[in-house]
Amino acid sequence: MAVELRQVVVYGTGLIGTSIALAVREAGVRTFLVDSAPGVARTAAARGAGEAGEPDALVDLAVIAVPPARVADVLIDAQRRGVARAYTDVASVKALPLERVIAAGCDLSSYVGGHPLAGRERSGPMAARADLFVGRPWVLTPSSASGGQARGLATALVELCGATPVEMEPDAHDHAVALVSHAPHLLAALMAARLEHAPDSAVRLSGQGVRDVTRIAAGDRALWEEILGANADAVADVLEAVADDLSGAVAALRRIAGADGERARLELAEVLRRGNTGHARIPGKHGAPPAPYSVVPVLIGDQPGELARLFSDAGEAKLNIEDVRIEHSPNQRAGLVELLVNADRAEDLAAELRERGWDVQG
Amino acid sequence: MAVELRQVVVYGTGLIGTSIALAVREAGVRTFLVDSAPGVARTAAARGAGEAGEPDALVDLAVIAVPPARVADVLIDAQRRGVARAYTDVASVKALPLERVIAAGCDLSSYVGGHPLAGRERSGPMAARADLFVGRPWVLTPSSASGGQARGLATALVELCGATPVEMEPDAHDHAVALVSHAPHLLAALMAARLEHAPDSAVRLSGQGVRDVTRIAAGDRALWEEILGANADAVADVLEAVADDLSGAVAALRRIAGADGERARLELAEVLRRGNTGHARIPGKHGAPPAPYSVVPVLIGDQPGELARLFSDAGEAKLNIEDVRIEHSPNQRAGLVELLVNADRAEDLAAELRERGWDVQG
Repeated sequence: MAVELRQVVVYGTGLIGTSIALAVREAGVRTFLVDSAPGVARTAAARGAGEAGEPDALVDLAVIAVPPARVADVLIDAQRRGVARAYTDVASVKALPLERVIAAGCDLSSYVGGHPLAGRERSGPMAARADLFVGRPWVLTPSSASGGQARGLATALVELCGATPVEMEPDAHDHAVALVSHAPHLLAALMAARLEHAPDSAVRLSGQGVRDVTRIAAGDRALWEEILGANADAVADVLEAVADDLSGAVAALRRIAGADGERARLELAEVLRRGNTGHARIPGKHGAPPAPYSVVPVLIGDQPGELARLFSDAGEAKLNIEDVRIEHSPNQRAGLVELLVNADRAEDLAAELRERGWDVQG
Repeated sequence: MAVELRQVVVYGTGLIGTSIALAVREAGVRTFLVDSAPGVARTAAARGAGEAGEPDALVDLAVIAVPPARVADVLIDAQRRGVARAYTDVASVKALPLERVIAAGCDLSSYVGGHPLAGRERSGPMAARADLFVGRPWVLTPSSASGGQARGLATALVELCGATPVEMEPDAHDHAVALVSHAPHLLAALMAARLEHAPDSAVRLSGQGVRDVTRIAAGDRALWEEILGANADAVADVLEAVADDLSGAVAALRRIAGADGERARLELAEVLRRGNTGHARIPGKHGAPPAPYSVVPVLIGDQPGELARLFSDAGEAKLNIEDVRIEHSPNQRAGLVELLVNADRAEDLAAELRERGWDVQG
């Protein structure tokens, strides 16, 4: 018997809560929006995420989208009022909330913990997007006490949001996100912190490399303080291993600068090799290895209408453009458009565009 | 009197050397391509970068695009043969090559060191692009012995490539790139290295954050071993400061996990604040603060031709689309297209597109 999700109440209408509401509403679910700051819930409602306020009757699922440390409080309160048939949360750590949920005496049979692996640098309901979770993993951490109805409704939520449900133990989840999310965040912040008092003449040489390494350091500080604090030991474990490698690398660099260069160079090469190998394991955008796409670079003029003409000509080639990147020169005389297409169609497209007079590079 | 650049020989036709040749050829400069592996020079020639082989007469400028440790050897050889009126190099460090250039007894009056701040993860002549340097800083490090002709010809090269010349002392340059390029590279590698032996269940939770932090770890290992080795002390200085902050952060996390949480949280918050502030100093894509652009998000179907129709409709609104990002859902039913336009025209565009039946989000 398929579980049907008809009404959802979202507690906490920030980026994640509002994005969930937007996503399930598109699937015809009725949504109620509650936030400790009522103005924030009204903003979410104005964005089309549903009705501001508590539901007037029992709903299928309550989604608790508040910071990790507050999950248990909101859950016990909602359960006492009998708001929903089942309850889930979206906190980025899973062991701590479960500990507190148990300590608070919540009903475990109607609760399944969850964590959608999605986010943006921007926060709040205005940054919410119905497609935020599409193709992303969404971890569910049912306990042995979780009942079938709660499991079913939580899974239905994940699927309506276009995400992929992944079942994990809370501890395994917390160690995994320490590795692929929390430790990278803190390292990005530590690198960015080096730029705080650097000379202008140095900072102006920054390129895409340091920009990418530090991009997530722009994230919401209060939120990350909360996340890192709630997963402190697991994050410290990862960072201690990084610190060991880092002090090895610094020592190797000092020896290269001194006399003892040869062996030290091998150690440095090994760090770079491990970096290559580790990086190659990261899955592509949608949790799968990168598709075999090729880039077709085209130089265009900067008049309005050039892109339209290019896409219209590309459309004649009857193939799907998977992604586009445009690089403008600063003097705005010309731009380079990179069209990403299936690798086996790239040559066709390049030929077709050249025939129509486009300046295809490479 | 403006300095005119008519012929250039490039020694070393990898990514940078070939990109320079492509760029100056577009401006009508005659180019000769030499590489210690003659097949590589022939590949560059086949890409349209110029003629493979040594020039048959004196050229204006020789561009030495070989690893830092080899610059002096190539320079002294070319000067002995009297190949060019002036010489420059593009090595990513500047103090070590100059030291060796002096030690080798090169003629300093015809030499100006240089370093274009541009690159890609891919290497070799096939990855070269004529617009690689457009809008990027290009550091020149003339010595007090550098003559006016050499300075003029090196500056002319930078300008023909569309880059911005920036004059610096070799040591200041090396400390600057240690901070904004070399240290970030090694940190990215150290983070990526943590993924090498991580469980699949953890790696599959990777998102855009860790992907960005580690992106440059995919770079050419041999090249980076060379770069880091040639700037070892300056890189070690930056990384030692990072290591100090890192051990402070690990200690704070351990105290948060234990009893002594309150003060430790403040320390963690301070790291995140410094990261925010440092990140905000990084200039935008073209060395200037980001322009006041707005994003207009549009949901489209995934049939061929949808993009053409969208850009054609956007073109009717008579405004320039500065950049485009396309996010496809994995099931390929629909995509979200983000159009980046001047902030003061975003509402016009959204209204125009809605009127034509497009599903403009937000």
